[in-house]
Amino acid sequence: MAKLGTALTEVLIPLAAVIGIGFAVLQWILVSRIRLSSEPVEKNGRPKNLVGREPEEEEEGVDGPASVAKCAEIQSAISIGATSFLITEYKFLAVFMVIFGVIIFLFLGSVKGFSKDSQPCTYSKDRICKPALANAAFSTLAFLLGSLTSVLSGFLGMKIATYANARTTVEARKGVGRAFIVAFRSGAVMGFLLAANGLLVLYISINLFKIYYGDDWEGLYESITGYGLGGSSMALFGRVGGGIYTKAADVGADLVGKVERNIPEDDPRNPAVIADNVGDNVGDIAGMGSDLFGSYAESTCAALFVGSISSFGVDHDFSAMSYPLLISSMGIIVCLFTTLVATDLFEIKSVKQIEPSLKWQLVISTVLMTGGIAIVSFVALPSKFTLFNFGEDKTVKNWHLFFCVSVGLWAGLIIGYVTEYFTSNAYRPVQAVADSCRTGAATNVIFGLALGYKSVIVPIFAIAIAIYVSFSLASMYGIAVAALGMLSTMATGLSIDAYGPISDNAGGIAEMAGMSRKIRERTDALDSAGNTTAAIGKGFAIGSAALVSLALFGAFVSRAGIDFVNVLSPKVFIGLLVGAMLPYWFSAMTMRSVGSAALKMVEEVRRQFNTIPGLMEGTTKPDYATCVKISTDASLRKMIPPGALVMLTPLIAGTFFGVETLAGVLAGALVSGVQVAISASNTGGAWDNAKKYIEAGVSEHAKALGPKGSDPHKAAVVGDTIGDPLKDTSGPSLNILVKLMAVESLVLAPFFAAHGGLLFKWFH
Amino acid sequence: MAKLGTALTEVLIPLAAVIGIGFAVLQWILVSRIRLSSEPVEKNGRPKNLVGREPEEEEEGVDGPASVAKCAEIQSAISIGATSFLITEYKFLAVFMVIFGVIIFLFLGSVKGFSKDSQPCTYSKDRICKPALANAAFSTLAFLLGSLTSVLSGFLGMKIATYANARTTVEARKGVGRAFIVAFRSGAVMGFLLAANGLLVLYISINLFKIYYGDDWEGLYESITGYGLGGSSMALFGRVGGGIYTKAADVGADLVGKVERNIPEDDPRNPAVIADNVGDNVGDIAGMGSDLFGSYAESTCAALFVGSISSFGVDHDFSAMSYPLLISSMGIIVCLFTTLVATDLFEIKSVKQIEPSLKWQLVISTVLMTGGIAIVSFVALPSKFTLFNFGEDKTVKNWHLFFCVSVGLWAGLIIGYVTEYFTSNAYRPVQAVADSCRTGAATNVIFGLALGYKSVIVPIFAIAIAIYVSFSLASMYGIAVAALGMLSTMATGLSIDAYGPISDNAGGIAEMAGMSRKIRERTDALDSAGNTTAAIGKGFAIGSAALVSLALFGAFVSRAGIDFVNVLSPKVFIGLLVGAMLPYWFSAMTMRSVGSAALKMVEEVRRQFNTIPGLMEGTTKPDYATCVKISTDASLRKMIPPGALVMLTPLIAGTFFGVETLAGVLAGALVSGVQVAISASNTGGAWDNAKKYIEAGVSEHAKALGPKGSDPHKAAVVGDTIGDPLKDTSGPSLNILVKLMAVESLVLAPFFAAHGGLLFKWFH
Repeated sequence: MAKLGTALTEVLIPLAAVIGIGFAVLQWILVSRIRLSSEPVEKNGRPKNLVGREPEEEEEGVDGPASVAKCAEIQSAISIGATSFLITEYKFLAVFMVIFGVIIFLFLGSVKGFSKDSQPCTYSKDRICKPALANAAFSTLAFLLGSLTSVLSGFLGMKIATYANARTTVEARKGVGRAFIVAFRSGAVMGFLLAANGLLVLYISINLFKIYYGDDWEGLYESITGYGLGGSSMALFGRVGGGIYTKAADVGADLVGKVERNIPEDDPRNPAVIADNVGDNVGDIAGMGSDLFGSYAESTCAALFVGSISSFGVDHDFSAMSYPLLISSMGIIVCLFTTLVATDLFEIKSVKQIEPSLKWQLVISTVLMTGGIAIVSFVALPSKFTLFNFGEDKTVKNWHLFFCVSVGLWAGLIIGYVTEYFTSNAYRPVQAVADSCRTGAATNVIFGLALGYKSVIVPIFAIAIAIYVSFSLASMYGIAVAALGMLSTMATGLSIDAYGPISDNAGGIAEMAGMSRKIRERTDALDSAGNTTAAIGKGFAIGSAALVSLALFGAFVSRAGIDFVNVLSPKVFIGLLVGAMLPYWFSAMTMRSVGSAALKMVEEVRRQFNTIPGLMEGTTKPDYATCVKISTDASLRKMIPPGALVMLTPLIAGTFFGVETLAGVLAGALVSGVQVAISASNTGGAWDNAKKYIEAGVSEHAKALGPKGSDPHKAAVVGDTIGDPLKDTSGPSLNILVKLMAVESLVLAPFFAAHGGLLFKWFH
Repeated sequence: MAKLGTALTEVLIPLAAVIGIGFAVLQWILVSRIRLSSEPVEKNGRPKNLVGREPEEEEEGVDGPASVAKCAEIQSAISIGATSFLITEYKFLAVFMVIFGVIIFLFLGSVKGFSKDSQPCTYSKDRICKPALANAAFSTLAFLLGSLTSVLSGFLGMKIATYANARTTVEARKGVGRAFIVAFRSGAVMGFLLAANGLLVLYISINLFKIYYGDDWEGLYESITGYGLGGSSMALFGRVGGGIYTKAADVGADLVGKVERNIPEDDPRNPAVIADNVGDNVGDIAGMGSDLFGSYAESTCAALFVGSISSFGVDHDFSAMSYPLLISSMGIIVCLFTTLVATDLFEIKSVKQIEPSLKWQLVISTVLMTGGIAIVSFVALPSKFTLFNFGEDKTVKNWHLFFCVSVGLWAGLIIGYVTEYFTSNAYRPVQAVADSCRTGAATNVIFGLALGYKSVIVPIFAIAIAIYVSFSLASMYGIAVAALGMLSTMATGLSIDAYGPISDNAGGIAEMAGMSRKIRERTDALDSAGNTTAAIGKGFAIGSAALVSLALFGAFVSRAGIDFVNVLSPKVFIGLLVGAMLPYWFSAMTMRSVGSAALKMVEEVRRQFNTIPGLMEGTTKPDYATCVKISTDASLRKMIPPGALVMLTPLIAGTFFGVETLAGVLAGALVSGVQVAISASNTGGAWDNAKKYIEAGVSEHAKALGPKGSDPHKAAVVGDTIGDPLKDTSGPSLNILVKLMAVESLVLAPFFAAHGGLLFKWFH
């Protein structure tokens, strides 16, 4: 048995979650001390933000109280726009949740013909488990809980980001270091809240489900996988819907504003500017929040499910069973110390320190976490136990698990660094792309595509090694905990990730509020570092998605009772081939959706510039609302077909073609989707930073290509625009495609195993 | 036993090959009747082309004898350039052939430690087979024969094309129908010569090898697989080298000529124009010839190998064994009739009839061939026999085989038609891409990429159905003959394919010779139809490559003695993941090579325009040779890394990681590579035709986007340029990557099975 007692485990997990939430609240309080004058300070009958306020160091004419008021006004417009979009989106999702909840219940309930009788357990045949109908009901409940937690995660993230963006702008008046701290703290609010919240809800659910399930751990952890499905299905719609929203606005705003009218980014005269800034919050922030929460929920569920049929699961060793939750708990504590390094130990004094400071966060959290994993592995796990390995038993030692989790963690760091190398303009690859702009947009696109393809190589080898090591040491449980390892520093990863769009918005607000060039330069520096960290975050998301979906795939195969998936069987091979095609089908839909929504946006923006007198002169306000409406309509309408593709594929493949073909589809989608996702994200990131490289003109080489408006710069803008849907709509949604199909198959596996493969049954 | 006797089989196969060659010679004679005045007519001491010459119907001032002489001069320059490049390329390839021949010999010879003793057969354990050393020697010999045939195929194709291009231009003076016949006949020379030649050399080799092997058919057909490896490895270098050559020149010529200097395509003032036209012949013609020859050789070898371990192979039923060769023989006869329909039964009277006439070729040959397959299946095969199915026996009837071959044939037709739908500007998808040019190059690229992704869906389902049907009916033998079915109408497919670049060159020559607008319009019409058929040809090439490589994969697995390839084994899964990455790595190399060679070309062309006085005015000739040199150097230097990647991967994976990982790599590369190849080809084709749609301005919609030089047209040119390396370098090379890795694994399988997996052996 584990060294750690059950009672202590029961205390430590919620304690870590509560500490994480407390830390997030503390950061929030620190951020909220920055006062935006237009806010209703006496909202609660007493003045806010009076404690500990430092005197403002500099306040000049153009950046004075009037500007601050303007910032508050713009922030309020963005916040209202984002809230209203998310609420409309969530109404759609509520309908989906109900429909899909019913599907889950009916599919799983029908496995034993809705019988209320208890049944022999699947893996421990000599025991009696709860009826299949109960599993159907609890899986549905877990699905709804996961969905709600995911929605909550996205919404909270958006609220925090829209609360922080103008405060970052205002704080930028006092120097780049101060602004950095605000943006970073706000990111941390989101990071810790999501990580802790995901852990806490899952922990409470398990304990509540246990009241009914008692000793039937198989049924308990089978049902809990619904939590992962709920988390990821909401994330899919969030990513796709938000992605279409933000990129339709962004592409539309850029094509007319920057290319045709030659006005700067985020210029308040551009009618699409509010939609663009709203988009950053609903796409990048809310979408990513839901996405990473989904990955976390799924990898934990996959590990718990595989664990429940291992020897410690069968022996009811609660501490060992809770190993995945204890790893996440340790992750929260480690990230807390890591965050303190950035906010309290070192002070950012110049622009150049921003990017290294963010990158150090990753290294510090990874190093500390390696120690943390060692502690958890030695106290929570029995020194020796057996794992279920597709029909065979596999004996594993606790230090094997230490290596499994660590290899995932370090593979994540490698992926992060490779992503940085290929997308930051400090290195050769992006500079070569920028250089190719000399001969126009065509060569820029050719070089950018080639860069994206090339950037796939090292991450794939890193993932392959992580898979081989963890698979060899601890079978599918090893893969699941390797994924958890990569996600264990999620609080820090999310902090850094959220920091990017907050800084981006802060810059937008500074521009719109007409603040001085100095402020804009500071926010630009914050934003530029954010671009690279955003790419790193996407790398993490994709890498962890690959491991998570492999773990889910393994859990699905175990649960469906398949002992091997043979590529030489025609059923499996056609699944593999069609599965590898799905990322292309999905990308075709999302790319086209962004393209056609952007076309509409361009027409509307052109129409406003042509018909509203005084718009270019800045004497009349544009009609922001129509642009917001175009983005909203497009994203809500067009998120349904790609969503349906992902949600229906496992249903159709499993029901008509059976578990073997479905296994093929999952493996095909996984190995193909990862490549498409990584190359799309990195190509887009590289084009964005190639453009920024030319604009910033820091080196001699960059100066020769610029300035803004030169032919090479125009070519770079074309690349940046093409990259928008690749890096912010298609690419990041593909992670979810891969994970979601796997978790859906896992949840519905009992049905497919019992009644699936209708088509082949008819024929034979 | 088969109804068809051995003696008759021995006669029919060479007879069909000889008829094919005879037909090609006849077409050649018909084409050669068109006289180019500058040719040395008394070369052989007597005047050529005097028999049956019809009087020329129209000959105007600008298109008079002087122009014809100019055409002849240009043709000669193109021919000399192409010949000199190919000879240089073949020198490189000769070195490669020797090195790789030695590798094959050493690897296969070492299987039994270079022992000269006979050994028990692998599959029929009670018989005695020839020593492994003999197999090594004969495999090497077969490899060299395949290489030489492939090189010959490419070279002959290029010679025919450069012989025909100016003749097409000259004949265009007499009307579009006459010009069409010349281009089409020349295509047929290539198509029939390649198909018949491939069959004949293989047939002779088998009969020669049989003198040594006698009753050891296992060894015989094992060794003969080297023929496929030789064919495909030459094709890889041909496609990559030729692809880089042609696209570096094309992109370079377009970027300066069309975009910067605003001069028409193929303008003689453009210094890169000769390199561009040479490129069409060495890339599209010679590359494609080698490619399809490779596919043909590989699918036949895969079918022969799998057949040799079936009951008719073990029973030494030569007619049944020769089933794949008989299918190809029937194909040559069917294609001969199909060609006569185009050249003699119907006459092209207007431009609109060209595309339908070419498309009907595909339908007619497919319908006729279905009957042909039925005949061959019933006379050549025993009514019932057993096939080897990964360790098990499978009983198959002869009509099962009819369905296997036919499903491949018809899947090819479906792929062809879908490709046409997505790449011809007669349909909605390309028109939508053209429409997106209204908002600039960025939306054009976004829509084009989305179109390419979408165009993957139906072909993948068609391939999946073909695989499922043929796999279920006749295991891996079914897949191999399905691939042969798709390739059985290769003579027609190649005729149509070669027609495209010949017409393209004819147009180029007309422009360079300063012929009248009328002539140029006629050659443009021929060329436009050729663009679509080229895309169809690529669709065929990719579809057949998918089936061929699956068949080779199956043969490899059988030969390596694996009975199942389990995705749930970590060794296999990491292979799958890394294999799926290879097409990206490969594309990154080829795209970048084209990009950087094009950059150099642009600089040279710009330099010439800026420094050579009188160039733009047409009073001075540009320095064509330097541009030819840039393309030559770039392609020869840069074809090595992607070639090495493809050739070394199976060696490394097999030697260090073993046959299971290698099986995973092959499956992964196959399911991922097919998608990348189809989407790249179709995206490129669509961009090209979207540009042509705007230029032609046939509909109201097209006119609104044009004319040449308008902003939408400029955006379309950017798309076209990006598409060049996608559709003519990366896309078509990926077929070969997929096939070649599989055939190399098959040839070296005995070594990998005996000595492979060193790394895992060390660890365990």
